[in-house]
Amino acid sequence: MDGIRSYYPGRRVMVTGGLGFIGSSLARRLLELGADVLVVDSMQPHTGANRANLRDVEDRICIRVADLTHPGCIADLLPGCSVVFNLAGRGSHLDSMTDPVCDLTANIHAQIVLLEACRRYVPEARIVFASTRQVYGRPDSCPVAESHPLRPVDANGINKMAAEAYHLLYRQVYGLQTICLRLTNVFGPRMRIKDARQTFLGLWLRRVLEDGDFEVWGGEQRRDLLYVEDAVDAFLAAAALSAKTDSVVNVGGNPPVTLIGLAELLVEVAGTGHFEIRPFPPERLPIDIGDYYADDQLFRKLTGWAPNVSVGEGLARTIAYYQGCLSDYV
Amino acid sequence: MDGIRSYYPGRRVMVTGGLGFIGSSLARRLLELGADVLVVDSMQPHTGANRANLRDVEDRICIRVADLTHPGCIADLLPGCSVVFNLAGRGSHLDSMTDPVCDLTANIHAQIVLLEACRRYVPEARIVFASTRQVYGRPDSCPVAESHPLRPVDANGINKMAAEAYHLLYRQVYGLQTICLRLTNVFGPRMRIKDARQTFLGLWLRRVLEDGDFEVWGGEQRRDLLYVEDAVDAFLAAAALSAKTDSVVNVGGNPPVTLIGLAELLVEVAGTGHFEIRPFPPERLPIDIGDYYADDQLFRKLTGWAPNVSVGEGLARTIAYYQGCLSDYV
Repeated sequence: MDGIRSYYPGRRVMVTGGLGFIGSSLARRLLELGADVLVVDSMQPHTGANRANLRDVEDRICIRVADLTHPGCIADLLPGCSVVFNLAGRGSHLDSMTDPVCDLTANIHAQIVLLEACRRYVPEARIVFASTRQVYGRPDSCPVAESHPLRPVDANGINKMAAEAYHLLYRQVYGLQTICLRLTNVFGPRMRIKDARQTFLGLWLRRVLEDGDFEVWGGEQRRDLLYVEDAVDAFLAAAALSAKTDSVVNVGGNPPVTLIGLAELLVEVAGTGHFEIRPFPPERLPIDIGDYYADDQLFRKLTGWAPNVSVGEGLARTIAYYQGCLSDYV
Repeated sequence: MDGIRSYYPGRRVMVTGGLGFIGSSLARRLLELGADVLVVDSMQPHTGANRANLRDVEDRICIRVADLTHPGCIADLLPGCSVVFNLAGRGSHLDSMTDPVCDLTANIHAQIVLLEACRRYVPEARIVFASTRQVYGRPDSCPVAESHPLRPVDANGINKMAAEAYHLLYRQVYGLQTICLRLTNVFGPRMRIKDARQTFLGLWLRRVLEDGDFEVWGGEQRRDLLYVEDAVDAFLAAAALSAKTDSVVNVGGNPPVTLIGLAELLVEVAGTGHFEIRPFPPERLPIDIGDYYADDQLFRKLTGWAPNVSVGEGLARTIAYYQGCLSDYV
């Protein structure tokens, strides 16, 4: 990652969704690397957006609260940007089923406006889009490679699939240097823990931090969790890739664990909390995907990237973070 | 098709996009079959919508000019419908690249609103969605089966792909009886001939009818053309399918012809017109798909459907139609 460190000093870099969980972590790292960081975030309710995520660095980052669906909102910020990390969007599966049009607006409409603006103002910029494993739907088998069919099982998955396709389209037709990362479950400091909208693990963390019980639904499902600083490394590595490489790549995480295994680890690391195993709620079954873990050999080969932080270590750091500032997040 | 004839008398049937080319042809047939036909159309400019398509039957069809994105607009029409033929949408590839958000609104947003309304008012209705071969993008090889990867090459293809996924989602999660027809190039009376927005063939027809020259771009590309009355049969057959069958099917057409072969046939049938072969315009190359013809064995097996009208016969009928009413279409 040494080449990456030398790339950013003095460079103008935009992070959309930069007040959110991964976006703010990325913005902070870019600041450390010496970049001129511009954050755009619409601060939509029920998302990961939280001013507390950047409060201590607000004087060193340009933060614009604005909705990307308004074409003018980034016109004055975008020119001069070398890299656009595009993490704006909504991620809640359940909210997307309750209000698919809201999800559509945030996850496709806004992306089109951003891509049109990139085409106009920064056609040479590198654009890294935060896609999701959710585009695959319920896997035929694991690990899941990029060639797996896309059969999303909720509105969020459909809209992210379309947003990804738009990034590829603008690459193909207009030559924009877009790359899409299909992220697995990411966790760590600054994630939404108020409820389970960002992941089930957010709510588990809140319960453990408040010394309460939490519920594990099902429990045998397997996931390959990724600590947020490793996800940040993946974004930086993706931006450094030549525009000639594959344009859609999986980013997986640590070796898969069952949800029960994860719950046990969380209680052990925290030294507190209890969980009960419940059957998976029947009303959620149609949008459940069962096991998921990624085959991300392609991305690892292209970049040399690999996760550095184990799930246990990541959980310990996450708990330590929230112990100092829980009231900002609940 | 005998069972189909006996299904419709007295039944309330909605056709969205029913003032358009295929929609109006379907509405007319449903009227002949004795159905209580409701047409909803937003009459968007640059689409196939044309009041002339139903002018002679306006007193026997309920026509509502309304935009499906307004949730209230069909609330009073939808209750009681046994079948919803969903042909609303935009189809121009080039327009979709000029204004992707407009295409998004018509092809995804409106579809979500319609599906939500179906869920609420007519959860038992059969819903047949007009999808398109455009979702495949440039085929790896022909004929193209349903399992071919979806790699749309323009905004229209992306949006139709997402709309299709929404129809499958509402089937999977809410039990709606949706089926999606991936149509090949359809032609015939009532198609848009003012320009090439609906297909290149529309513009060829106009030129021939006006005794002028037309241009063939490239010319070696192959297409399996389908006459509109055969497409109408396919919609009727799809509605009659059990909800248990496959939910996405290709609908192809006659044996494939090259565009040059088609141009020669058109001039021969019309007894007039001349064409010149031009290189494919370079600015359109990125969204060109080359050859396309469908493997539609699945749909043929499920329904017994097959095209009845040859390309030559279809062209003759089409020319005869426009000779009587050209001013309504140019």
